Parts: sequence; C-alpha cells; structure tokens
Amino acid sequence: MGRHDDAGGLTTGRIAALADGVFAVAMTLLVLEFHVPALPEGATSAHLDAALARLWPQVLSYVAGFLVLGTLWIGHHYQLHYVRRADRTFLWLNLGFLLMVTFLPFCVALLGTFGTFTTPCVLYGASLLVAGSFLMGQWSYATNRRRLVEAALEEAVVRALRSRIQAGMLVYCAGFALAFVAPRLSLAAYAAMPLLYFVPSRIDRHSMAHPPQSGG
Amino acid sequence: MGRHDDAGGLTTGRIAALADGVFAVAMTLLVLEFHVPALPEGATSAHLDAALARLWPQVLSYVAGFLVLGTLWIGHHYQLHYVRRADRTFLWLNLGFLLMVTFLPFCVALLGTFGTFTTPCVLYGASLLVAGSFLMGQWSYATNRRRLVEAALEEAVVRALRSRIQAGMLVYCAGFALAFVAPRLSLAAYAAMPLLYFVPSRIDRHSMAHPPQSGG
Amino acid sequence: MGRHDDAGGLTTGRIAALADGVFAVAMTLLVLEFHVPALPEGATSAHLDAALARLWPQVLSYVAGFLVLGTLWIGHHYQLHYVRRADRTFLWLNLGFLLMVTFLPFCVALLGTFGTFTTPCVLYGASLLVAGSFLMGQWSYATNRRRLVEAALEEAVVRALRSRIQAGMLVYCAGFALAFVAPRLSLAAYAAMPLLYFVPSRIDRHSMAHPPQSGG
Amino acid sequence: MGRHDDAGGLTTGRIAALADGVFAVAMTLLVLEFHVPALPEGATSAHLDAALARLWPQVLSYVAGFLVLGTLWIGHHYQLHYVRRADRTFLWLNLGFLLMVTFLPFCVALLGTFGTFTTPCVLYGASLLVAGSFLMGQWSYATNRRRLVEAALEEAVVRALRSRIQAGMLVYCAGFALAFVAPRLSLAAYAAMPLLYFVPSRIDRHSMAHPPQSGG
Repeated sequence: MGRHDDAGGLTTGRIAALADGVFAVAMTLLVLEFHVPALPEGATSAHLDAALARLWPQVLSYVAGFLVLGTLWIGHHYQLHYVRRADRTFLWLNLGFLLMVTFLPFCVALLGTFGTFTTPCVLYGASLLVAGSFLMGQWSYATNRRRLVEAALEEAVVRALRSRIQAGMLVYCAGFALAFVAPRLSLAAYAAMPLLYFVPSRIDRHSMAHPPQSGG
Repeated sequence: MGRHDDAGGLTTGRIAALADGVFAVAMTLLVLEFHVPALPEGATSAHLDAALARLWPQVLSYVAGFLVLGTLWIGHHYQLHYVRRADRTFLWLNLGFLLMVTFLPFCVALLGTFGTFTTPCVLYGASLLVAGSFLMGQWSYATNRRRLVEAALEEAVVRALRSRIQAGMLVYCAGFALAFVAPRLSLAAYAAMPLLYFVPSRIDRHSMAHPPQSGG
Repeated sequence: MGRHDDAGGLTTGRIAALADGVFAVAMTLLVLEFHVPALPEGATSAHLDAALARLWPQVLSYVAGFLVLGTLWIGHHYQLHYVRRADRTFLWLNLGFLLMVTFLPFCVALLGTFGTFTTPCVLYGASLLVAGSFLMGQWSYATNRRRLVEAALEEAVVRALRSRIQAGMLVYCAGFALAFVAPRLSLAAYAAMPLLYFVPSRIDRHSMAHPPQSGG
Repeated sequence: MGRHDDAGGLTTGRIAALADGVFAVAMTLLVLEFHVPALPEGATSAHLDAALARLWPQVLSYVAGFLVLGTLWIGHHYQLHYVRRADRTFLWLNLGFLLMVTFLPFCVALLGTFGTFTTPCVLYGASLLVAGSFLMGQWSYATNRRRLVEAALEEAVVRALRSRIQAGMLVYCAGFALAFVAPRLSLAAYAAMPLLYFVPSRIDRHSMAHPPQSGG
C-alpha cells in the first residue's frame, strides 16, 4: 500500500486496518447489550413476546449507536481518502479518536438503560465531542501546510471536510447542553445527527471526481 | 487499492475491510452462546456428558448461523468483485446491510433457545429479508446506469447476481410466512437456504473468466 | 489485490481478511476464559494471590489454545501464499475451516475446566481433525489439476504442504485416540503439536526463494 | 501486497492484518471491564451518578491499557515499515508478541480492580517485559545480517528502533521492581511509559524521508 508514496512517511494502510477493526468490533459489541431473555420452565410464547417487547429501548439505542459509529467511520474514511502518509503525531491523534470509538458502546448501553437521566446524555454528548475534536485535530494536522496530504489539495476540499465535522459537533453540542435541562430533547438531537451525514455535499462531488488515495 | 480507478470515487477496499471485520466478529460471537457447563463439586464425567448433550440446540443454531453469515459474506464478496468505486449512498446502504449482520447473532441465539415459538422464527426471517433488501439495494444502486461498476459490465451479469439474491429472499420469505403457522417448517426453510449458495451459477462462470476488481 | 490475476476468478485478499479477522477474534476471546477474581470486602493481597493461583489450568489452556490457533493460521497463510484465485467451492471449504476455528475457543475452555475428563479431550481432537480436513480439502481442491494455483507450481511443493498438514493430523489423531484411554496423555499429544510447526521444512526453503502471491 | 518482493519469502501483509485485528479486539475488549450499573427499581439520577463515580478506577485503567496497546501497536507498525518479508521464525516471534497483547486486557482489568496490591503490578510489568522482548527479538531476527529487511538498511535505523524498545523496557522494568516495594509508584511508572512514545525520534525523521514498505 501507499507505494506511490515517494515522499516517504508511514503508510496509512495499517491506520485504516486498525480503525476498521476497532469499528467492526465496536459495532458488533453493541448487540451484546440485549440478551436472550431467561424465562422460567413452562413459559409460553406470550411470555417470550412480552420479554422481547421490553427490549425496545435497548434495540433503539443499538440502532442509534450503530448509526453514530457509521457516521464516524464515514468521516474517518473521507479523511484518509486524502491523507497520503502518516507520522507519529498523526498515529496518536488517530489512537485518541479510536479510544473514543471504543468508549461509545458503553455510553450507548448506558443511554439504552437510563436514557431519561441527565448523566448518560451528558456523557454521550461529551464523548462524541471529544471524538469529533480528535477527527478535527487529525484533519487540521494533516492539511496544515499540506503536511500529510498532497501539496496540490485544494483549500475548498480542506474547508468542506472541516465544516462537515463542525456541523456534526454543533449537533453534539446541542445534545450535550440539552442534557442538562431536558434529557429527552437531548436524545432527539443525538438521533438527528446521522441524518446530517446522509446528505451529500461538495466533498462527495469532489471525491467522485478524483482518484482515491492509494493506501486508503 | 483501487489504483486503477481513474474515474474517481472512494475506494471499496475499506468497505470490504469493515465488512470482513464485522462478519469475523459476528461469526465468532455466535460461539459465545454456549458456555462451559457449571457443574457442582464432585461431578463425574457422566454429569459433564449429560450437560454437554443438552447444548445441541445451541450447537445446531450456531452452525446454522455461521452458514447464513457465510452465504451473506459470499454474496457481499461477489458484489464487490464488480463494484469499482463507492459514494456516500453506497456506504450507507452497506452500513445498513452490516447493521443486520450484527443483529443476526442475537436472532440465532433466540432461535437456539426458543426455536419452537413463533416470534424467534418471524424475527429471524424478517432480519434476513431486510439484510437481503440492503444487498439488493446496493447492487441495484451500483449497477443502475453503471453508476459504480464498469461501463462495459454485461447486463447478464447484473441480472444473474440479482436473481441469486432474489432466490435467497424467496426462501427467507417462505420461512417468514411459515413461522406464523408452523415454526418447525420455518426452521427447515431457513436451514435449506445455504444449500442454494453451494450450487454454482452463471455468476461463477463469469467471475472465473474475468480478472477481479482491484479494490476488492 | 490480485491485480496480476489475468486468469480471472475471485481474489483471495478478502478470504485472507476474513480469516485474519476470525483468527484475531478467536485468539483474543480465549482470554475471556479467565476473569478477574471476585473477592469479598477486606480481602488481602494473599487472598488475591491464592485466587490467581487457582487460575493456572485456564492460563495453560489459553496459551495452548493460542498456539494451536497460531499453527492453523500459519498453515492457512502458507496455503494462500500459493493460491492465486478463488471460486465458490474454495470459499465454502474455507468457511468450513473457519467454522472450526471459531469453535476451538469453546473446546479449549472446556479443556481448561474439565481437562481430565474424556469428552473434552475427544471433542478437542475431533475439532482439530475436522479443521485439518478442511485445510487439506482446500489445498487438494486448489492444487488438483492446478485449478487455483499457478500452472507451473512444482509437485514437490504441493506434496510438502500436504504432508505437513498430514503430520499435524496424525498428532491430533493420536490425541483423539488417547482421550478414550488416558486423557492426560491426550493433553500431552495436543501440547506437542505446535512444536511440529516450529520446525522449518522444505516449504520454508521454497517460499523464501519465490515471490509471494499478490493477493495474499 | 509485497509484489516488489522479488527476493521471495512470505508477505508481511497478513502479519499486519492479524496484528491489527488482535489489537483492535484487545483495545475494544478493555471497555467490557465496565458494565452499566445495575440499580434497584425506583433508583434516581443521583444513585446512578454515585454508581458511575465508583467506576473511575476502571476508566483509568481502561485508558491506560488503551495507551499501552497503542504504544505497542505503534512499535509494531514502525518495525513492519522496514521488514520486507517473513519466514516461519518471524511468524512465531510475532505470534508470541500477539499472545502477550491478548493477555494485557486481563492484566489491565486486574490492575483496575486490585491496583494497590503487589501481584497485579508485578504481573502487568512482567507481561510488558515479555511483550517487549518479543518485539525486540523480532527486530533483531529480522535485521541480523539484514535477513528480512533491505540489504541497504542503515545501521543507524536498526539501532534507533532497538534503543526505543529498550527505553520502553527500562520503564517496564522499573515498574516491575517498584511493584514489590510500592505498588502506587509502580502504577506511576507504567502510566509514564506512553509519554515516551509521544516524543518523536531519529526514527521518525528517517521514516518520513523514506518510502514505506509495500506490504505494510
């Protein structure tokens, strides 16, 4: 990978591989939150249905958690599409981002069980804000003076990716603030976030028009 | 990866990597369903054998779950064999597919414990139908006006892959419908499904005759 | 990957990726067998040491399980070093192999807890025999009439890899048979197996002298 | 991967893939140490906050464990940056290293629960020393007579990477020794270790100036 990378530097292939692995495990761990209900001997189909029906907050938070991890993965994917090589600082920024990714399943589980309390909503918002900050830090570090991207990368692309992360962080911020006054509204803000990432933007048009990065 | 991809677009390498990771974790999590039996002090070899013998429904549903994940993985593999690049919509369709993949171990565990009840059979069929729909949606999206595949890709290949997914969904549909009247027949339908994927088809002949996609 | 693969066929890159993922998860799951001891309030350092000391059979079976998975991974690695492309049958043989790989952590956990009983030793040997059979089946299928390997692959290499798998299976067989008469001897046979894979062979000399397969 | 590898030998791509998978799972498993608190019916937000506050030693050890795995991953990454091919001995050294990586989450969990006792601090230091030894062994084996690296690799690079691992092991050694007299000081030494890896060194300057290894 990265064999066109004549300028030297570590490849980004293993960063992507580690990230993909962490995301894959985190996404799959979310489902460990719901367990097959333990029913007493002689339980009927109706008992099972009742027990399963009680799982819906867990199912909801699992789907929400998956979508959030999905948006973070897509954000990471778009960044590495443009990053050509890595150095030690970039590796650590990336590890900080992944640390937050591994922490999210716990936050999601907490939300699924105690979603109407303040602390879980605060914690979730704070975790997403930190994750977003790392993503933003990575991008700023890589593009600043075109340190780890192509020298010819247009400023418009740099700005477009940056404002996308900022938009996400604004929503997290709103959710974080709302958590203190109305946990339910906070949940709504968090749920709305992935929608942002469904909408295509200037970045999509740019990435479709340019060949991808070799190590991504 | 994807370095021949002169037409631009995101690489498919990381989609494959994330999917392979999710499948690997989901396949391995299935085995967490059976635990080493907890026996009282002084238990004999015969007690252990009896405890292990009681695990057979779990073992059966584990093998079945593994085979179903295997067929979905193979279906995904064949698709990406032809897909040359990705965009945001394709990423999200793929995430939807993976969401269902992470949900399947829970459904399988439910089947292993309560396989003779209606709801687990319904849930399993429904999950497979949704997974199949995402797989189909991905393929239609990618091949429609040859959006993400090679312009020269033959219509016969597009149709062959599509009808293979449809055949699988027909079986899931049968299982889903049977779940309401006879859960045991439903299980039989689900068990028969992987057999479909053992049989080679026109797609196999085509893929053996054409060089694989670079990013897959 | 596999872009020199002018003869067509599916790439082997994703087979390797799925296998690496399954092995990585299975290897790491082994460690879930030992839990941090739960001690009563006011427990001293000596209580902890005593509790940890009781974990040694689990630690031993974890190390043994890791080494066995390691040998299977190395065997798989050497095979794909020579395999140039895949078809549906090869994918399924590989999935059968991986099914056994995901089953091994359970067998190892069983051995760690009930290693002196017959059934765990029998089960472990049987699982390894089935895993070895799939590995052998894969290799025979791929090399038969040079179906999925290079036409010019020397018969000596085909035979060398085959006899290495056979040697491993012979040891599993011995362990399997001994399980019925003397479980402790059976454990010794299983423990000896990885040693076989430490010793370099003709295959090592050949693989060091030839460029690796592009998709591996 | 490794297609410029005219000198033969196994590719390093799958070693990296297995390692990335093991690291990804181990990093994510760390978070399984803290569970959503189980509260009685009618518990208030204050009860939850109190329960969460009691989790801080677990959170701390989780972050510390993640950072340690991060430093080991970075060390592994830098090594494979220079390694051009693999043989059987290298595969086994690497598996030994990964064995210790999978063992670390247990050590970290033990530290999180019984961090003021001697044994967990000793065990953690010992595990890191063994992991470091494998990393060092790998590097010595690969660079000795330039066995698996490029013949032209400068001695300065070999020494720089070696002294970096040695520096880490010195800190582990200190933590290991301190564990016997003052567990709390031992924890401080362990916590300081990742800081070492934040600081760029001669290796960073070298790796930024040279194209990466193709199989890494």
